[in-house]
Amino acid sequence: MSMSSPSGGRSGRRRGTTQTREAIALAAQTQFAEVGYDRATFRSIATAAGVDPALVVHFFGSKEQLFHEVMKLPSGLADALVGLVQGPRDEIGRRVAEVIVAGFENPAAQRIIVGRIRSASQHPEAAELVRQAVAGDLARLTAALDVDRPDVRAVLAGVQVVGTALARYVVRVEPLASMPAPQLIELLAPTFQRLLVEPLGA
Amino acid sequence: MSMSSPSGGRSGRRRGTTQTREAIALAAQTQFAEVGYDRATFRSIATAAGVDPALVVHFFGSKEQLFHEVMKLPSGLADALVGLVQGPRDEIGRRVAEVIVAGFENPAAQRIIVGRIRSASQHPEAAELVRQAVAGDLARLTAALDVDRPDVRAVLAGVQVVGTALARYVVRVEPLASMPAPQLIELLAPTFQRLLVEPLGA
Repeated sequence: MSMSSPSGGRSGRRRGTTQTREAIALAAQTQFAEVGYDRATFRSIATAAGVDPALVVHFFGSKEQLFHEVMKLPSGLADALVGLVQGPRDEIGRRVAEVIVAGFENPAAQRIIVGRIRSASQHPEAAELVRQAVAGDLARLTAALDVDRPDVRAVLAGVQVVGTALARYVVRVEPLASMPAPQLIELLAPTFQRLLVEPLGA
Repeated sequence: MSMSSPSGGRSGRRRGTTQTREAIALAAQTQFAEVGYDRATFRSIATAAGVDPALVVHFFGSKEQLFHEVMKLPSGLADALVGLVQGPRDEIGRRVAEVIVAGFENPAAQRIIVGRIRSASQHPEAAELVRQAVAGDLARLTAALDVDRPDVRAVLAGVQVVGTALARYVVRVEPLASMPAPQLIELLAPTFQRLLVEPLGA
């Protein structure tokens, strides 16, 4: 197998190394999101990417390494969350809802979020990434907010995030699944507001 | 294979038909909860139940039928939710939190809830059962509450339920995973209160 002449794929066009790697990464994200870790195979990913399965191994090594590489969220998303500590405190819930829903609606981020949730039962790293989504990134925000019980607030807000992603994208329950993003932001904002900065009640 | 003399299992004791069926059902629930639909096999379930795999087939037929039979929530739980419409409206959130958390803490119900969530990506009926958990049972309650947008309220409350179950039991994120039930009830009650009967804000 030569890296300088990878399989051209379904289109028949020749692709460079970077494009081929990106096509495999996209196909892998899509497979993990649609069928989860166990059912996504080198073969199914290669077929979706229009390449030989050996090329997937060549670029990414093991399935674990492939998952690790393609299931990283854009670092801008976590940084954007922490940055929300700036701005009016009585609108923090809305700003968090906007960033979260924008993340959901970003096609690559959506594939990654759904792929993590679908794979969480099958692969330890997926479970760890969901734990991080539930508490890790939001914990950086609550730590910066100067509130009581920042760890509890982060995990309760994280429950909203993964619960909403599970309901909207994995099991697709209506009216959530087809709700326009602006309406979803309006509905989530007051819950984030209370969980992040208002009295917790316990 | 004779029904009148089922395998005695690990213990070496002879068990009656009912006890054997119950041992298989318990083992199946546990396997679905721990490893999900795909990885739970007739063989792994039979081993856990201490019976011959053929006996699992004998009692339950296909894996789909087995899942269908053992993943039914006790009907009392859904009925208990709807019954909560009785009583003070300004405490409905707390009563819902109490019933949900009591369900979580019931070992059989916990196996079923976790088994459904872990299997939701792998088996259409599991996905349907999670959809039902997100919206179906709570929708009967919100319909009885005489509120605006009962369907939206039901699904937002359902997001709390499955998000909390996912975070507490599947990926086990702290401090939620080891939080005592009474504290969890205190934390969930105000969110349910707002989502069920207070202004939604959108």
